[in-house]
Amino acid sequence: MLAIDFYFDFSSPYGYFASTQIDALARDLGRDVAWHPILLGPMFKITGTTPLTEIPLKGAYSRHDMLRTAQIYNIPFNEPSPFPINTVTAARTMLHAQDTQPDRAIPFAQRALHAYYVENIDISQPEQIVRIAGESGLDIEALRQALSSDQLKLRLRTENDAAIARGVFGSPFIILDDEPFWGFDRLDMIRRWASRVAVP
Amino acid sequence: MLAIDFYFDFSSPYGYFASTQIDALARDLGRDVAWHPILLGPMFKITGTTPLTEIPLKGAYSRHDMLRTAQIYNIPFNEPSPFPINTVTAARTMLHAQDTQPDRAIPFAQRALHAYYVENIDISQPEQIVRIAGESGLDIEALRQALSSDQLKLRLRTENDAAIARGVFGSPFIILDDEPFWGFDRLDMIRRWASRVAVP
Repeated sequence: MLAIDFYFDFSSPYGYFASTQIDALARDLGRDVAWHPILLGPMFKITGTTPLTEIPLKGAYSRHDMLRTAQIYNIPFNEPSPFPINTVTAARTMLHAQDTQPDRAIPFAQRALHAYYVENIDISQPEQIVRIAGESGLDIEALRQALSSDQLKLRLRTENDAAIARGVFGSPFIILDDEPFWGFDRLDMIRRWASRVAVP
Repeated sequence: MLAIDFYFDFSSPYGYFASTQIDALARDLGRDVAWHPILLGPMFKITGTTPLTEIPLKGAYSRHDMLRTAQIYNIPFNEPSPFPINTVTAARTMLHAQDTQPDRAIPFAQRALHAYYVENIDISQPEQIVRIAGESGLDIEALRQALSSDQLKLRLRTENDAAIARGVFGSPFIILDDEPFWGFDRLDMIRRWASRVAVP
């Protein structure tokens, strides 16, 4: 089955919101979902952006908007702190899972996102990621080894560069065939777009 | 009748898109619309932003997104050039119209937006604005006098500062009672929000 590409940073609240809706969207479109963990840091360097909540005016707006968005969509959410966080270990762990135990990759991501955005657990801490990976059915010893390897570091860098080459610069970022959509507030537009191009 | 506050910069394509949908939105909500011309320049200084189309990655995305958004919503649109432009004269003219011939203010704004986004007329040129104002039924002599006065300059600066004080930092920006919404892609959310708070 064709997939829609779903790019997200573990440190992006709107990426988390999208992760709770992406299955329903994919079902409506008759697609699978390919999850791509990304790092916003290198992308923000290219676009000259800083984390949303640190920007004057926009910061206050976005903090308010996150809370009401969670409310409107009935998504469990507690404002994360610390924020933003380093998500290198989380992203590497997900890529490792996709390579070695692919059926455990999405459950790991969902658990890690839930830990950060609902339970206020600081998932920048490698020991928290390893614990969550274990609870998600991943082989912890293999993960520890992989996390200390250069190979997995390089893997994430390559994946992130590939995302940038496709034009990805934010989270969530969804690509349906070659059509790019940036932002949680575009899920409705994706449905509209898909139904439009389906019209003969 | 209560109004929704609609803030837009004449140089914002998404502001133009919103201007074509704002009446339908207001009707659905049982509201009037208060149009507020703003200048993004001073706001971008505060948020550290540059015009969307000039940002790497985001620029290419947004140019593509403008075209498809116009297509999806059946909004007449030709990519404007030059872009962005200085909209001081357009904004001052609209404020002057609101003060002196209020029933001509919105028709003027709509004509000016159509001139720039459909007919590719450079509305940064004062003579184009004066022409459009005349075609919209505004008293051109009174307008010329007002445009050369310090009073109207100060009026726009005060209005823009008041918008910033309310948290406005982009275009379109809509405030429904005290609830702020940024971006053309939030029109659906405004409807959702309004119907939600209406539930007893």
